[in-house]
This record gives sequence, C-alpha cells and structure tokens, in this order.
Amino acid sequence: MNLKQKIANIPDWPEKGVTFRDITPLLADKEAFKYVIDKMAEPYLDNPPDFVLGIDARGFIIASALAYRLGAGLAIVRKAGKLPRATIKKEYTLEYASNAIEMHEDAIKSGDRVLLVDDVLATGGTMSAAIELVEKLEGNIIGVDFLIGLTALGGTEKIKYPIKSLIEY
Amino acid sequence: MNLKQKIANIPDWPEKGVTFRDITPLLADKEAFKYVIDKMAEPYLDNPPDFVLGIDARGFIIASALAYRLGAGLAIVRKAGKLPRATIKKEYTLEYASNAIEMHEDAIKSGDRVLLVDDVLATGGTMSAAIELVEKLEGNIIGVDFLIGLTALGGTEKIKYPIKSLIEY
Repeated sequence: MNLKQKIANIPDWPEKGVTFRDITPLLADKEAFKYVIDKMAEPYLDNPPDFVLGIDARGFIIASALAYRLGAGLAIVRKAGKLPRATIKKEYTLEYASNAIEMHEDAIKSGDRVLLVDDVLATGGTMSAAIELVEKLEGNIIGVDFLIGLTALGGTEKIKYPIKSLIEY
Repeated sequence: MNLKQKIANIPDWPEKGVTFRDITPLLADKEAFKYVIDKMAEPYLDNPPDFVLGIDARGFIIASALAYRLGAGLAIVRKAGKLPRATIKKEYTLEYASNAIEMHEDAIKSGDRVLLVDDVLATGGTMSAAIELVEKLEGNIIGVDFLIGLTALGGTEKIKYPIKSLIEY
C-alpha cells in the first residue's frame, strides 16, 4: 500500500520552513488505517507490551488502536495541567514550541514493559521527554515507534532505544 | 465487569463543585479497555459507520480503537488552530471553559454515515458543537456514543440524536 499517497503535505505549517505531514486522509481511509495499525502491531504480537504509551494528542490515535490490537493497557502522557492525580512532569522544547508534559506517577510500575508511540518523529523532543518520564518510573522500554519518521531532523540520534518508523521522509 | 471500580473520582477538579471522572485506570487495565471498546462496537458490527468521529483529545482514545474494531475510517475534530487544511469551525462554551473546535471541510462527505464518540458526556457543549460541524457537511449521524454519561448535567436533552453511554452516573 502506498501510504505516502494518503498523507497531505502542508508546506510552511505551522511555521515557515516546516513541512507538516497531515495524517488525517490516512486515518479517514479505513483500509489504510487498519493496515498501519496492523503493521505497527506485527513485531509485538508474540510478546505484547504491558502498556502502549500514547502522547497527547495525535499520539493517542495511534497508541489507542495499537493497544487494543495488542491486548495491552493504554497509558497516556498529557500536556501539563490536564491530568487530575499526582503526576511527574518534564519540560522540553520542540520544533516549533516549548512545552511540558505529565504522566500520572502510578501510570506504570517498575519493570512494566512499555512501548512508546507517537504519530510523527521530528526532532524527538517530545518523545525524549516522554522517555525520561517512563525511565523515572523505571519502566522497561521495549520500543519507540512512530507512524512517520522525519529522519533528516535528527530525532533518531537523540533516542537511545530501538526505533521504528512505518513511513519515512 | 464493574467498570466504575476502574474510574478514579476526583472531587473539585478542574473546578470546585465538579467531580472529574478519570478514565486512566480503566485504559491502563487491558481487560477493561478491551471490554469497553468491544461493548461500544457491538451495536454497529453488522452495519458499521463510514466514520467514527473522535473529539480532541481524550475522545481520540475511544474513537480510534472503536474505528479500528469496526473497520471504519477515523475522522477527527480538533481544538481551533491545530488542523492544517481548510476547516469549518464552531465556537461553544462548556462546563468549565469556552472553546472552539474545527474539522477539515473534506473530513466527511454528504451522506457519509458518522458515529460521533467522546469519552464523557457532561453538559453536551462540545458534542453539540461537533454535531453542528457534521451537519454542516451533511453527514448522516447514526449515533452519539460516550464511554461515560453524567446524566444529571443535562447533556442528554441537548443532543437530538440516539445517545448511548456505557457507564452512567
């Protein structure tokens, strides 16, 4: 399946010089959506993680269907201020903004096998922050997977765990 | 399955007088997560919608797994300013904030069968705004489903389509 045909390329958005990869046409295509979730699940079918961890907000889309497919629990990382119970927090900067993310401090336990997932790997800033949160909770990171990897932006070098990107630019 | 046991009740959050129903323990429980998605999918298995529509951000969690389960496409409504292509927009007020949501104007076509989904029905403000967007695109709304319905808050009366809530308070 030619997945790149299902992605809309938006030049200079949200900022000049950035090409935004819009996955909404892919999500809307029922065959393509099922295909990408099944493909991302494939390597873990024999030994699923305890948790798939999704990152606010588009990361939830990939992580949720993937957790369902794998029969895993879903854990979430949210933008600061959105989670109601005791959290751990990490501030970071990314391609076109600075931000902070949080995770409930009981979201995962020491030794839990965690697959971190987001829609797009750009500079890796958000994912690196999420990794730090999981490490603080002593989760066992078994993989860091993306629907799309923008390999020229250096994110791959920043992340010290096995990375998979289904679609690469 | 006693689903209410999997939900954390947070008094006075995010504002005094509001009890926030935190679904993160339910999502983290792999059996409970699979159960709620399967239960929400059940009524549509014989005749799935063209699209499950998820609302930014927690609504994505329910909608995505449900779209995957049903073999449907996933359409999304986002907070204003997040979608990169031509959109339609609706401003609204809800329980504890005012807001605006957008949808790509090509997200659904006239006559498409659409199942709208969110995690929690409170006053119905967000969902009513999403319904107006789908109506503007002439979508055929086949249902409006929630994981949790807070029936005392009046949202049920505001929505003029068939509503289902898996868990009611």
